[in-house]
This record gives sequence, C-alpha cells and structure tokens, in this order.
Amino acid sequence: MIRASIVGGSGYTGGELIRILLAHPEVELFQVTSRSHLGEYVYQTHPNLRKQTQLKFSDPSNISACDILFLAQPHGEAQKKIGFFSQQAPRIIDLSADFRLRDPQFYEAWYKVPHSAPEWLPQFIYGLPELHRQELRSARYVSGVGCNATAAILSLLPFSKAGLLSDQEVIRVEIKVGSSESGAEGNPGTHHPERSGVVRTYSAFGHRHTAEVIQELNIKNISLTMSSVDLVRGAMATSHIRNLSHSSQKEIWGFYRSLANENPFIRLVKEQRGIYRVPEPKVLAGSNYADIGFEYDPENEHIVSMCAIDNLMKGASGTAVQCMNLMFGLDETTGLNFSGLHPI
Amino acid sequence: MIRASIVGGSGYTGGELIRILLAHPEVELFQVTSRSHLGEYVYQTHPNLRKQTQLKFSDPSNISACDILFLAQPHGEAQKKIGFFSQQAPRIIDLSADFRLRDPQFYEAWYKVPHSAPEWLPQFIYGLPELHRQELRSARYVSGVGCNATAAILSLLPFSKAGLLSDQEVIRVEIKVGSSESGAEGNPGTHHPERSGVVRTYSAFGHRHTAEVIQELNIKNISLTMSSVDLVRGAMATSHIRNLSHSSQKEIWGFYRSLANENPFIRLVKEQRGIYRVPEPKVLAGSNYADIGFEYDPENEHIVSMCAIDNLMKGASGTAVQCMNLMFGLDETTGLNFSGLHPI
Amino acid sequence: MIRASIVGGSGYTGGELIRILLAHPEVELFQVTSRSHLGEYVYQTHPNLRKQTQLKFSDPSNISACDILFLAQPHGEAQKKIGFFSQQAPRIIDLSADFRLRDPQFYEAWYKVPHSAPEWLPQFIYGLPELHRQELRSARYVSGVGCNATAAILSLLPFSKAGLLSDQEVIRVEIKVGSSESGAEGNPGTHHPERSGVVRTYSAFGHRHTAEVIQELNIKNISLTMSSVDLVRGAMATSHIRNLSHSSQKEIWGFYRSLANENPFIRLVKEQRGIYRVPEPKVLAGSNYADIGFEYDPENEHIVSMCAIDNLMKGASGTAVQCMNLMFGLDETTGLNFSGLHPI
Amino acid sequence: MIRASIVGGSGYTGGELIRILLAHPEVELFQVTSRSHLGEYVYQTHPNLRKQTQLKFSDPSNISACDILFLAQPHGEAQKKIGFFSQQAPRIIDLSADFRLRDPQFYEAWYKVPHSAPEWLPQFIYGLPELHRQELRSARYVSGVGCNATAAILSLLPFSKAGLLSDQEVIRVEIKVGSSESGAEGNPGTHHPERSGVVRTYSAFGHRHTAEVIQELNIKNISLTMSSVDLVRGAMATSHIRNLSHSSQKEIWGFYRSLANENPFIRLVKEQRGIYRVPEPKVLAGSNYADIGFEYDPENEHIVSMCAIDNLMKGASGTAVQCMNLMFGLDETTGLNFSGLHPI
Repeated sequence: MIRASIVGGSGYTGGELIRILLAHPEVELFQVTSRSHLGEYVYQTHPNLRKQTQLKFSDPSNISACDILFLAQPHGEAQKKIGFFSQQAPRIIDLSADFRLRDPQFYEAWYKVPHSAPEWLPQFIYGLPELHRQELRSARYVSGVGCNATAAILSLLPFSKAGLLSDQEVIRVEIKVGSSESGAEGNPGTHHPERSGVVRTYSAFGHRHTAEVIQELNIKNISLTMSSVDLVRGAMATSHIRNLSHSSQKEIWGFYRSLANENPFIRLVKEQRGIYRVPEPKVLAGSNYADIGFEYDPENEHIVSMCAIDNLMKGASGTAVQCMNLMFGLDETTGLNFSGLHPI
Repeated sequence: MIRASIVGGSGYTGGELIRILLAHPEVELFQVTSRSHLGEYVYQTHPNLRKQTQLKFSDPSNISACDILFLAQPHGEAQKKIGFFSQQAPRIIDLSADFRLRDPQFYEAWYKVPHSAPEWLPQFIYGLPELHRQELRSARYVSGVGCNATAAILSLLPFSKAGLLSDQEVIRVEIKVGSSESGAEGNPGTHHPERSGVVRTYSAFGHRHTAEVIQELNIKNISLTMSSVDLVRGAMATSHIRNLSHSSQKEIWGFYRSLANENPFIRLVKEQRGIYRVPEPKVLAGSNYADIGFEYDPENEHIVSMCAIDNLMKGASGTAVQCMNLMFGLDETTGLNFSGLHPI
Repeated sequence: MIRASIVGGSGYTGGELIRILLAHPEVELFQVTSRSHLGEYVYQTHPNLRKQTQLKFSDPSNISACDILFLAQPHGEAQKKIGFFSQQAPRIIDLSADFRLRDPQFYEAWYKVPHSAPEWLPQFIYGLPELHRQELRSARYVSGVGCNATAAILSLLPFSKAGLLSDQEVIRVEIKVGSSESGAEGNPGTHHPERSGVVRTYSAFGHRHTAEVIQELNIKNISLTMSSVDLVRGAMATSHIRNLSHSSQKEIWGFYRSLANENPFIRLVKEQRGIYRVPEPKVLAGSNYADIGFEYDPENEHIVSMCAIDNLMKGASGTAVQCMNLMFGLDETTGLNFSGLHPI
Repeated sequence: MIRASIVGGSGYTGGELIRILLAHPEVELFQVTSRSHLGEYVYQTHPNLRKQTQLKFSDPSNISACDILFLAQPHGEAQKKIGFFSQQAPRIIDLSADFRLRDPQFYEAWYKVPHSAPEWLPQFIYGLPELHRQELRSARYVSGVGCNATAAILSLLPFSKAGLLSDQEVIRVEIKVGSSESGAEGNPGTHHPERSGVVRTYSAFGHRHTAEVIQELNIKNISLTMSSVDLVRGAMATSHIRNLSHSSQKEIWGFYRSLANENPFIRLVKEQRGIYRVPEPKVLAGSNYADIGFEYDPENEHIVSMCAIDNLMKGASGTAVQCMNLMFGLDETTGLNFSGLHPI
C-alpha cells in the first residue's frame, strides 16, 4: 500500500484528492492537513465523505513521513516550504501553480513576482500524462496542471502531436468555466445572486494558465479568453485554428482518433445525432475523462477544436492521481474509473 | 413631485427601491446613501441602472430634508437613529425588521435583545396594504414587511378575512426562497459552488418572520419552515390548513376570488391546463404581484394554500412604494406596473 | 459472476442501472434493451458511458436467459409481460410502480385502473432494504421503490421503528424534487426556459407514491406535497410530525442514530456549524446514501424530520442493486460505494 | 393611439411584444393571434400578463385592419403570406428571418431554400436602429433582427463606424446564449435534465445569423461560434479583432464612447472594480439595452470586444418596438424604459 498524505485538504482540489484516494485500492490515506479546520472531521467540510472516513484534519507542520505527499495549498505556499516537504516524502505532487513552469524568468514574467525556489523548477515534471507519460514513470517531483491549461492543451494536442501547430497565425482559445474554479473561499463575485446565470468574460487575455500552454505546446502565438458560466464543475475549451497544413477532414479525424486511442482518459466525441454530439463538461463531473472533438469548415480552413473536462478531476486532482499511478508503476487508471453521471 | 431619499442604498432592497423610484412618475429621488460605497456611482453597484441615473452614493450622516425617507439598513440600525431620521423627513418607511412588531416584549422574545426605541413601536403601521390600507393613507411611520412573512400572510389571508383561521389545529407553512434573501453580503453558504442546486432547510422553525404572521393574523398555532432553493428572486409559501369550518370548494374559491378582486396586486392562479397552473415565483421577478392559489382535498379536509412573490418587490421594496403611494394619496399602483417576464 | 440484463435501458433509471452494473465487480451486464434506440450504442444515449462499454441496445422481445432481469420500463408495461419475463430469469427486479402495492384494490384506488396481473402482487417484496432486508435475501421477485416514497419513508422510519408513528394526527411531508423525476421524455413543463428556476407545487396531495408510504409504514393519516425545484437529481423530504409520545430530544436523536448505525447507506446529518448542517440532496448525486436529520421544537412538540436522496440512486437504481446484492448473498454495498461529489 | 396587432403571439418573441405593447403609452394592442391557443386568454400562456390584459388569442386568418402588424411566426411563414398581411396594415414589422437579407441568392445560400417572395426583399429595412435609424423613420416594411446577429454586430460596430473593419484577417465571434433562443417549443436537447448546466457548442460555424452580420457590416471574413449555456434570457458576443489600424487604447475607447453617446440603448461598461466590470447579459433580462465593452492587449494588437443583450428584447421584440417608435415619429425609447433587475 502506498502511504499518501495531503497538505491543504479543506479546499476543493484537496477534497477531491481525499475522495479519490479513500477509494483507491492501492493507497492508504494517512494524513490530511488544514490549518483553518484543524481537529475537525474531514466530512464536516466535505459532506460527501461522511461515513467514508473518520479522518480529522491535522496540522501541516506535523506532517509525518509517507510515500507520497500531495500539496494542495494556495499558490505561492509550496515554493516557500518545498525543502521541508521534500524531507517528509520521497515523492511530491504539488497541485498549485508553483512548479509548473520550468524557467524562473518565464515564471516571473507571468506571475509578477520572483520564484522563491528557482533551483527546484527543473526537478519538476509537468504532470500531464498525455504529454509526459514516460518521464512521469520515474519522476520524483511532479507539478499538477492548470485546469484551463489542460483543456486548452488537450484541445490542441491532436495537431501538436501531428506537428501541425505553428506560430504563423494566432490560435484563439475560448474557455468557459464553472464556479469551482474560484476555489472554496468565496469572493463578492461568487455570491450566488451575483454568480448565478452569468456569462462573465473575466479574463479577455493574459490568464496565467496561458504560460503553461505556451511552454508545453512550444508555441507563442496563442490567446486564452476566459468566461464564467453557470456551472459548478467544468471547463470547456473551444479553440480556433487555421488549417495551415491543408489536412483533409479525414486526416484531422485521424489525429483525434489516435490521441483517444493512445490515452485511456481521452474520448473522441463526434456524433451525427442525439443530444450529446460534441464534448460537454456537465456529463464529466467526477470523472477523469477529457472529451475532445472538432468541427471543420473546409471553405475557410477553420478548425474548431473542443475539449471538455471536470476542472477538479482531469484539470487537477484526477490527473494528479493519474501521475501518482504512473510514478508507482500502477495501471494509470487505478482508482479513476468513475464514469460521470447522466443526467446531472 | 415627492422628494424621496434612501438610507442604505447599496443592498438589495435599497437597490430595488432606487430602481422603482427612478421610474416613478411622481417621485424625485434625491439622495441615496451608502457608507461602504460613498462617492461611487449608484450604477457601479447596481449595473442595471447605468444610463438611468448619475446619482452617487452619499453619506448617511449628511441626509437633507425630504418628503419621505426610506430606511434600508441592516436590522438593528434604524432603531438606534430613528430620532435623528424623524427630524429629516415627516414620513418614514423603514424596511428593516426594527419596527414591525408593536409590542416591545414580543420583539425581545423573537429578536433576543431589548428594543432600543420601544416608544416608537406603536407609531409604526405594519406596511402591508392588503391588511392596513386605510391606516396607511394617513400614516407617517410605516414599517416594511418581512418577505417570508408576506408570503405566509397572503397565503392565509383568504381564510383570515373569512374569519376561519383558528388556533385549534397547527398551521404549517413551508417556504422556499431564493438567494437574494441572504442580502448583498455573502456568507460561506452563499458561495456559488455551495449554494447552487441546493434544497437546504435552514430554519425548521423559529424563523423571526413568524412573529409578524402571529401578530398580523392574530393566531399562535403556526410554524414556518424555510428552505433555500436554486433561485435568486422569489419566495413561495405553501400553507397546510385544516378546513375546520367545512367550507365547500366553491366557498373557498370565493375567499380567494374576493381577495384578488379587492387588491390590485393579488392574482388568483388556478388553471386546469397549461404549464402555469399554480402560483410560481419565477414569473414574478421584478413585479409587485402576489400570486395566490389553492388545492382542496375534501376527503381529508386539507387545504394547501400557495402564495408566490418576488421577495425584493412584494416582499420588500415594492410593497414599501405601494405604501408610499397610499401615504401620499396616489393611486396605489403608481410606478409599480411592471408585469414580470416570461420566460425567465 | 451474475449475468444481468436490463429491459428499458434508455431512460434515466435504466441508464443509472447500466452505469452501476458495468462497474459492479460481481456482475456481467449481458443485455440492455431499448425499442426506440435499437442497435445504437448505449453511450450515444448515456454519454458518460463512452469508453466504458461497447454494448448496443437490443430488442426487448429477444431477451435471453440470465440470472437476474431488471425491468426499467414505463409504468404499466411490466404487469403486462411479467409472465414472459419470469421465464427468462429466476430473479426479477421491476423498477416501475407495477408491483409496489400488495393489494390489487389498493392499487386500483391509487392508479385508477385495475391491475393486469394481480396474482403476481403477493409474490413481490417491496425492495427497500431498510424495511425488508431479511425477506430480500431469499426473494425472487422484488419491486423497486418510488423515489418520493423512499425519501418520505426514510424520514419517518426512525419513529416507525420506535413504534411512535400513529394516525392520531396528520403527518405532512413536503417533498422538493429535481427534474430527472420527470423521466427522459420531456414535456412542455420541462422545457428549460419554463423549468429553470421553478418552485412549482405540482401535486398538493394525492401523489401516487403516497400509497407506498401508507402501505409500508402502516399509517393512513399522511399527506405528501410535491414541489419541483431547480435541480436535476435529488429528492428532499421534510416531514412534520407531532411528538405525541413526548420523547426527549436525546431519545429522538437515538432513534436516528440507531437507524444510521444499522443501515450502511443511512447517514445522520446534524451539525452545529459549517455549511452542511442538515441533509441536502445536492451532495448525494450519484451516491446511494440517504441522509437523514431532524430539528425538534420542544415547546410545540414539533419534529421536523428530513431525508435527502438522489432519486435515481437511493430512490431507484441504487436501491435496486442493493436488493440484488442481498438476493445473491453479496455484501449489501458491493458496487455502490461512490461517495458523491463536493462541490457539485 | 397606434392600433397594433401581432400575428403569432404564443411564442417567446410574441409574448415579449405583447408585454411591451400593453405597457406602451401610445399603443392600443388590438389583436393577438395564435392558432394553437385559439380562444384562450393570453395570460394562460404568458402568466406574467395575468391581470394586465383580458385579451384572447384570435385566428390569424381573421386579422383586421390596423396601423401596424407585427409578425412573430416561425421562420418561413411570413414570406408565404406577406401579400395578405400587407393588405391589413400599412406598416409591418416581421420578426422572423424571412426578410432580413436583401439578396435572394444570398438568402438561398444561407437558408438552403429559394425565397418565396423575393420581390419583397428590397422593400424591407433591416430593423436595427443603430444602423438604419434614418431609413427606419420613413420605412413601411421592417425586418426584425437576429438575436445573435445583433450581439455580433453591436460588438463590432464601434470599429465599423470608425471604418476599421476589414477582411484582411478573420474576425472570430464567440456567442454564448440562453435557452429562450430555442423558442417556446422544446426539443430533446432542451429537456431540463439535459439542458441544465450545459456548455454546448451547438454551432461551430455556419450559423444563419452570420449572413446578417456579413450583409450589415459589409465584411466577409468572419465566423460565429455558438454555445448554449445555463441561462434563460441572454446572448453574449465576444469578438476577437486584430487592431490592424494600430489605434491606441484611447482611440478605441473613443469608438465605444461615441457609439454609446449616439444611441440611447447602447451602454459602455468598462469598470476597474466591483463585480460588474464588463458587459453581462444577466442584468439585462427584460431591458432593451445592449451593453458593450472591450479589453485591448497592445502587445498582440488583440481587441476583445464584448456585447451583451437580452435576446428577446434588444435581440428581437424590444428592437422591433424601437423601430415602430421611429416609424411613427415617437421618441425612440417610448415604452422601452425598463432598466432590468439586479440581482436576478
């Protein structure tokens, strides 16, 4: 059994990690910390876990030795204490944004502050198995992924894998997201009367997750536009790409088919009838799938590529556990088989 | 023109008052105060009012003389300064809970603190025109109504008017409410991911609005149970009454019909077909109507009486303006003709 | 391995059965029928199941022999063909309303038509393990439960078990339900613009599920009032009971505690702080838990008892699989461990 | 008084027309037709209008002479009977798509069928006052606008007016829409359990409203991508434009400011703080405003231009009444002053 602990368990990604690891057949969930909920039962914060665990939140400064440590703290925390944490566990997965970018200058350009532990940056693997499966098998330090970055990357990956992404023409990615992306701490804009029913373009460009897409896909000419919609879980990327290589509809279909075939959590959704013809986040709540699909307008060589995920699963905690599975030589899908619900 | 000012304009009832009074043909909206938004344009807080007014929030301590003052502050504030406010305006409508109950001991029993200005209590009329139309015409001090109390009272009023309410058997009132009842300040439970899709029985009994129902209908044996549902505006009361007087279905219908005929904002909704057969709050957003209806089970002498309102309109600001109209000898419906929307 | 088939797999309870059985470690899902989607992949109708199964919908008249047959057809269908189905499988669980009531006259009184196979009624066990666990272990024919009946029954069961339910005073049960209760076929009232944001009291009394509550709890003086709210999955019962036995708060707590201790899927929710203090359906989506709780007003001897379930799980397919587990001597919780999600 | 009648009053645009015209100070609403609801009270279909009118739906073939006729039928109907209708009223506003495009071949290219009354096309003015105010003052035949076209056009109009739109680089418009765009007749995809919480990219390109944008802005290199989100009323266009003229941020601001200054229903929303910094459809429900705004990324010369509307008001019935006002020499805003609600 893998002995795993979680630092920062009262937030949404922390709660999702707890849920997955409690049901994971190869894991013993050992400690879960929370300073603000210290001593309380985990199920008081995450009511779905009542009768599933009697764990209480413990003090993050009293973390004991374990096989793997998941860090699920607010951004900026992990980099301050990575030295300490690395002494508690031989393997670490940090779900914050702290170790996603390899280059300290690139980090500073996007996060507007210097990194506190730049020497650690090259030691971390960007934890998206669809990109780094092989390196993850032997990794000790893995960074979680940005949820919006994940949706954007996976919507573009069929073309990236085919060597067809270029900086010649700008790629525009429109992302619609649910309210759980705001985290467990509310703000005036997430108060229900103000957040219900919104279509709120809160970041027209310059969202920090853009940096991950640039780094991982090795392109520069890309913009992400983020809008909040009325949904709790889910991120949906719609990417607009020019078909500069003049690939045929059939070839494009092949790029998607290959990606779906090679990755257990990628599904190609492209139906001619029924209600669910294209990827949609709502049926993914709780699942680790990323649904991809596309429409192609040959007249204008316009490709509209879509990727839907559950931001807390494939966009955060699910992918982190998928990485853990790889790091420990387990089947990649262990403990991640929940299909999602219909209807929901 | 009636010169009106509002103390406490940044909250939801304050915002709704501003909206109504700006469009009211007989009112000049003079001052609107907000300590927290001092100096900001009203439309920055209430974005629907952009291009409708250039008013800025002013300081509540600099209130100037006017014809009528609306107080829309948090509960407990008005009673502290009623003396000061009464010097600024000959007529006052207080929308808080401070002056709804006539008896200081009754107030203390329900609000758990002694009233700060008990001598003022008998001077206020409970501002529900369906109950106190005549007194309101000559009133100087009027209390706004509790939204849940309004829905409960109006669901029972057909029987009360017929002299058929009694304390012989308990009356159970189930009320479902939207999130705007929480006010403009959020709390952890109104954070969208936690509030979206809820059915949350947050007050099984003992809700303070119960006191208003007891006072106004002169009954004691009644309980209100409050549940939050996924809706922004709206309160829906479903009251369970025993038909102790053995009235016929037709007689009961007559009680409702009379109430609807005698009151411009009461509508009887009881259709045999179509989608909208019973009162529903969603079609009332922005309107001052209270929709009432009932179902009668003769076998068990069980009457299910329903009343739907917009909690910010008929349950607060709309009714307050209706009272103002009466106080100034205007037609009761002036400035309150908005029909609500369908669909919404 | 248990070979299981499902007749009527394109509806919501059918889809939920497929989802559970595909992941059930002791079951081989053999056939799933649907006349309207004949030959289509199951995942085209239930998009969550893509990549989880390659099953196609087959013809209900070509059902092959199997160990257990789940019938998930519209009400009225199973009773017409129960003879045929009983030849295909030694064990049957019918999720429709056809075999829930034991007495043909009682059936006719509530369903307004004579039963087509009254001789089968006594052979069926009402499939709620919290009531009939022992009988279910040896049952061959089991009826699924009504979702609203389940919520109502479980909210009253702590008192029923204690022998404290009586017909002396009416018990009022207010039930709020999500839109999935309407089934997969829409109607004018479920069109999103008309159904979104509703609080619609669509059945003031006389709902057919009332009959199940009367039969199973052996009381008569009870009414169920049903309201639709904006939610997809979930049923929430709030029952109003007079504490006629003058039980103390502590004794009442004991009734709930016992029920939760004796049943793996019953949880007692009664917290003093945090967001989730009472049972709420939204955190139950996809889970088989029934969350129960109460508030007690000693002054009026008024008990407000609550029960929240996922109507498609504990209120239908989850409980059906729980019954199957009992019928086959498996651990009752096998394949039903999903915890639900937070947030959602 | 203007005597106005409506053909096709049971749909959503028809209902909205009725609501506006009933409250319009210069209009007498004369007849409202509906074949499917013939003889029923208008308020049975549009429950917001109860107590506002006793009108019943009449037979469309019995239309009497009136001053202006609004046609609010399904697409394809008006062109079949335009001759008949033109004999009943000297002025017609058709809200369907039938007379929006001037060129019959262009119509056929987008609608895939030949137009039945091509000779009428040049007689109709495209009824968007922000584009054709002067012509509308003397127009007899006016076409209503497409809701998505309106949002797209108004998001681009600041640049079009400045002469800065070109076909040099593609303009991508992402539009998110509420469920009322589906019309009053449901389809399987609008069933609440399937439509609630969606982000559904139902038209990646090629949406028919694109044709109106091409015609009215005189550009070709543009694509519209449509997604359904969980909202009843509202359309939100986010347009991505390259700043090919190298305008400064201040100049761009000027384009928007001018448009807002010159048009009573255009508002510029661009705030540095608060919740409502950018245009959002939810606060526009029931109002005729179009809120516009932008963000400019000088580094990439990327302009993100936003326009939010209520699809049934500014995107349909509100604009139609605005046109009527112009046609009859009234103030353009008469009867259209409703501000929208906050919160909602």
